Amino acid sequence: MASPLIESLIAQFGRLPGLGPRSARRMVLHLLRAKDTHMLTLADKLREVATHVTACLECGNLDTQSPCHICADARRDPHSICVVEELPDLWAIERSGMFKGTYHVLGGTLSALHGTGPDELKIPRLLTRLQEKNIQEVILATNATVAGQTTAHYITDQLQGLNVKTTQLAQGIPVGAELDYLDDGTLFTAFQARKGV
Amino acid sequence: MASPLIESLIAQFGRLPGLGPRSARRMVLHLLRAKDTHMLTLADKLREVATHVTACLECGNLDTQSPCHICADARRDPHSICVVEELPDLWAIERSGMFKGTYHVLGGTLSALHGTGPDELKIPRLLTRLQEKNIQEVILATNATVAGQTTAHYITDQLQGLNVKTTQLAQGIPVGAELDYLDDGTLFTAFQARKGV
Repeated sequence: MASPLIESLIAQFGRLPGLGPRSARRMVLHLLRAKDTHMLTLADKLREVATHVTACLECGNLDTQSPCHICADARRDPHSICVVEELPDLWAIERSGMFKGTYHVLGGTLSALHGTGPDELKIPRLLTRLQEKNIQEVILATNATVAGQTTAHYITDQLQGLNVKTTQLAQGIPVGAELDYLDDGTLFTAFQARKGV
Repeated sequence: MASPLIESLIAQFGRLPGLGPRSARRMVLHLLRAKDTHMLTLADKLREVATHVTACLECGNLDTQSPCHICADARRDPHSICVVEELPDLWAIERSGMFKGTYHVLGGTLSALHGTGPDELKIPRLLTRLQEKNIQEVILATNATVAGQTTAHYITDQLQGLNVKTTQLAQGIPVGAELDYLDDGTLFTAFQARKGV
């Protein structure tokens, strides 16, 4: 066992997702060897993020400013909203560089079990944004899971009669995939959604 | 991409051993969801460890005090020194609860390639400790690797004529191992070191 203070730091690291006691110990050891460079920087950065980062009141993205740097960016199209479940989904779409509109981060999916209703997902806020600004397209980019698709379906229902083009990400065979290794559900969807060449 | 501040925190996590950009992102996301509880605690703990933890001047262990809580513990035998390569080796032996003496943390192994000589490993300091205190046994608990064994051999040479009992951890078949899965080196060593029943 290490000294009590070091043990308590190891315990803090061990609570992070995907880290067991062994890897937590390895990380703390690495940091102990780079106390002035890495360890203090990490401490400062964590404190800075914890105190300065807030949710964007517009879209739910986390940033040091609200509206966030995406909502505030004049070069982005404010008339197109991409609806995602969680922050990492937004990050993934941003990494792809495909989308130049704005976002709406739900923060989860509809779930009676977990008590997540439309209000928790800020769906009323999404509807207000649609009415306030002249939104032309809502892209539903929820996960291709049952929960994600149910949520997308619910939002589609709410958008009825609002005169907004609603689209959803295409489902099918992922780029680079081999048919032999695909699950039946994906193959089925890809067959059903087949297009003329 | 996340906001620049969050991205820089992800980069800090990504520099930790065994973490790729994906798992670093996952951890930061977890921390963002527990800003007040986990994130600030982790920041404070990191700062506390970075500022308060120092190497024990006696044995090289890291602790908030020097002599460390092991060297300062009156219930431990100060006449027995266990020589280990690195801090995690000390932690592992402490976890086993087997050893009730004191330690000497080398901080590595002898290596011409990396320029690690006897001075870097505080071997002169070990010899001074042997002469100052009435040490009865030195247990060489370096790793069973070529570098570890070379270092143990060098220390054994230095201890010649000092009238100190020098021992080394037994090598052989690990508890619970199946012969079929053992490497040849271990089997060879276990055969050579066989004992009467």
